[in-house]
Amino acid sequence: MAAKKNRYSTCVSVARGSPAAMRRALSEALRRSEYAEARLDYMRPDDVPGLLDALPPGLLRRRIVCTVRNRRDGGRYEGREGDRYETLGMVAAHRPFMLDVEHDALKRSRRLADALHASGTRLLVSWHSFARTPQPGALRRKVQEMFRYSDHVKIACMARNTDESIRMLELYRGIDRKGAGGGGRTLISFAMGDAGRMTRVLCMQLGSPYAYVSLGRAVAPGQLSLEEFRRLGKMLK
Amino acid sequence: MAAKKNRYSTCVSVARGSPAAMRRALSEALRRSEYAEARLDYMRPDDVPGLLDALPPGLLRRRIVCTVRNRRDGGRYEGREGDRYETLGMVAAHRPFMLDVEHDALKRSRRLADALHASGTRLLVSWHSFARTPQPGALRRKVQEMFRYSDHVKIACMARNTDESIRMLELYRGIDRKGAGGGGRTLISFAMGDAGRMTRVLCMQLGSPYAYVSLGRAVAPGQLSLEEFRRLGKMLK
Repeated sequence: MAAKKNRYSTCVSVARGSPAAMRRALSEALRRSEYAEARLDYMRPDDVPGLLDALPPGLLRRRIVCTVRNRRDGGRYEGREGDRYETLGMVAAHRPFMLDVEHDALKRSRRLADALHASGTRLLVSWHSFARTPQPGALRRKVQEMFRYSDHVKIACMARNTDESIRMLELYRGIDRKGAGGGGRTLISFAMGDAGRMTRVLCMQLGSPYAYVSLGRAVAPGQLSLEEFRRLGKMLK
Repeated sequence: MAAKKNRYSTCVSVARGSPAAMRRALSEALRRSEYAEARLDYMRPDDVPGLLDALPPGLLRRRIVCTVRNRRDGGRYEGREGDRYETLGMVAAHRPFMLDVEHDALKRSRRLADALHASGTRLLVSWHSFARTPQPGALRRKVQEMFRYSDHVKIACMARNTDESIRMLELYRGIDRKGAGGGGRTLISFAMGDAGRMTRVLCMQLGSPYAYVSLGRAVAPGQLSLEEFRRLGKMLK
């Protein structure tokens, strides 16, 4: 993954329904944040190719993470899973900076996994647990499984207390930083919820390439705003 | 203040009613924590001199912070303020590592301030706001006023959100580290409450000499346990 100078790099989630609004919002986000996540599940699937073609290729390839989240994982995609996989394949062909794909989807569809690998796109294999944080051993095994699909993994769990949020940070220990692809492994691991707020900052000190932040009000529980994150990053260096 | 090697040093609050129990609990705390706070307001004032005489002088002078908190500041001292000042003076004569004295008390009683200064004891001038976090400018002026009484200041406010908790960390900017006494200034500034949890870790990266932690369950809102703090310190270095 391309290393940025700022240790406290950010990724702003952008969710808009129309291609024009999405394009404007991404470009606004990227004026202030190193990275942006395009939540393509907020758009009609038919509109996605047009959007990706219209984005400046430099931005898309170096700074935009594409996500097509289904409802189960907190997203808005309304079609069938098979159709979602089609959309993911089409997005992969546009070679965004990273394509966020759920670990569950890769496990469920060998065909999806093969197609995405064949595309050569950098996959960010993700897993979210909105209900609870598994025990440390189970978490560790989960991350190991996820790294089988890519050198880039994102895992986020809802923490009820400090102990659970520290578990998410302890996943950074023992990560083989080299990775299979030779470009280095990246782990994005943090805890959601009020008790997990600290992990969204501390994960940056342990190797996370960026933090998910909001422009304006927080869109995820415990999330920090871009401005709050900048204030902290300025102090902590 | 004596610098300890561990960047994530801790201070465990110890509150017991009898001198024997207090002595045992302090010594247990200091087996695991760099510092301990003796909450002397939990004891009968008449018992305090005996306790202080019975503590190993090395521990008292290098690792024990003494506090005689009144009810207004969340403590248990039941006597009159004048009597509390007497107790504070008596504790000062025993030269603990630091004597925590409320900024309000020093402002209210010139006699107390003069007596404590004359004792030569290292004062930790403290201010707690359990209801709210003042605006940045007011906070900064408050800290400046507090530093007039000592090179060692503790300020803790209840934060309702991330913005308020970051305010407490921003107080570390622009602190003159030299201090009037030549021994260096220390600022302990953090936010209480769930939203402030992160500041109890991050303040250590900004210059706080130690963090207040609990042995076992948390005694203050948002406080971390010694074990949780150690797990974080091990990772963050």
